Amino acid sequence: MTTPVPILFYFDFTSPYSYLASEKIDALAERFGRKVQWRPILLGGVFKALGTVSLVKQPGQAAYSEKDFARSARFLDVPYAQPAEFPVSTVAPARAWYWLHQQDCAMARRFAHEVFRAYFSAGRDIADTAVVQELAIKVGADGTALVAGMQTPEIKDRLRTETESAVAAGVFGAPWIVVDGEPFWGADRLPQIERWLSTGGF
Amino acid sequence: MTTPVPILFYFDFTSPYSYLASEKIDALAERFGRKVQWRPILLGGVFKALGTVSLVKQPGQAAYSEKDFARSARFLDVPYAQPAEFPVSTVAPARAWYWLHQQDCAMARRFAHEVFRAYFSAGRDIADTAVVQELAIKVGADGTALVAGMQTPEIKDRLRTETESAVAAGVFGAPWIVVDGEPFWGADRLPQIERWLSTGGF
Repeated sequence: MTTPVPILFYFDFTSPYSYLASEKIDALAERFGRKVQWRPILLGGVFKALGTVSLVKQPGQAAYSEKDFARSARFLDVPYAQPAEFPVSTVAPARAWYWLHQQDCAMARRFAHEVFRAYFSAGRDIADTAVVQELAIKVGADGTALVAGMQTPEIKDRLRTETESAVAAGVFGAPWIVVDGEPFWGADRLPQIERWLSTGGF
Repeated sequence: MTTPVPILFYFDFTSPYSYLASEKIDALAERFGRKVQWRPILLGGVFKALGTVSLVKQPGQAAYSEKDFARSARFLDVPYAQPAEFPVSTVAPARAWYWLHQQDCAMARRFAHEVFRAYFSAGRDIADTAVVQELAIKVGADGTALVAGMQTPEIKDRLRTETESAVAAGVFGAPWIVVDGEPFWGADRLPQIERWLSTGGF
């Protein structure tokens, strides 16, 4: 029996629906014996490449969006507090994630959860390298090496390349989840993903 | 005991997710002893008023959208065939709906289902007044009176006013469903609506 291809999970740390998906995707995959490959990207870069505008920045949509973020979180039983500063730059945590991922995949996963929760339930400023460093240390990273690693051309290129590859693969929003080649956009597609995994496609 | 306020269901006849919601909303409401007030609007008018762009017309999103329309229909067990011409003007069926609604609410409801199904499963041109007339006759309307009625200032004003009122009420897309003042955007919010109805809000 061949090992199934991992589920791909593209996300941006400032995307509320990415946060909601991040709290569910691993457990969901695990129920079907699947792994998840996490991939932070910069949605700002995606929008710029495509010439599109974030949903939440479309005229008239901000108020509804904030209501829906919080309601969807309650619906999924995930703690949520709308950050005062929203959206924020996620260059720092995304670079940190790729550096951590080179050291230790599991540590990168724990770090991602810390970043999402720090931003969406504790209101921390995840754009700030000092905050990113603190969260990385909390999951066991070497904070000094991390900050140095985040500044290397290799890590900067990696984040840029991953974002460009995502656009080339058809990603236009986040979370973007790919199951055996089938793309799903949005935390609200988790029930469809579950059916896809249980039936092999429908 | 006071009668509960009807659920408001704003839709556009060329909106795939409106079609999906139209196949589910009455039965869902009925399980909680609720009625649904259907309100066709012109999404084109909403986008123009807000200066926004339809999701499906955003760069890079058309292919995913078509995949998601059909997949979401299968997920909800609703027949679906992507219309060759999409989107189309829905001025004719929406005006017809308001004229029919003045004569007979139940007939207007049957007509709405005929229009949605004619477009999204039989590939009919619902922008064509002759098709609209045929579908109205099928549900028992006087076809000649209908076509005359669609041209009256009263009916033209009604559709314009309903679209403007929708924008004023915060509508920026369709389907847009309001349950006791709480707005829900999209057929994918049906599970949240169900929980809202069963719990009285969450």
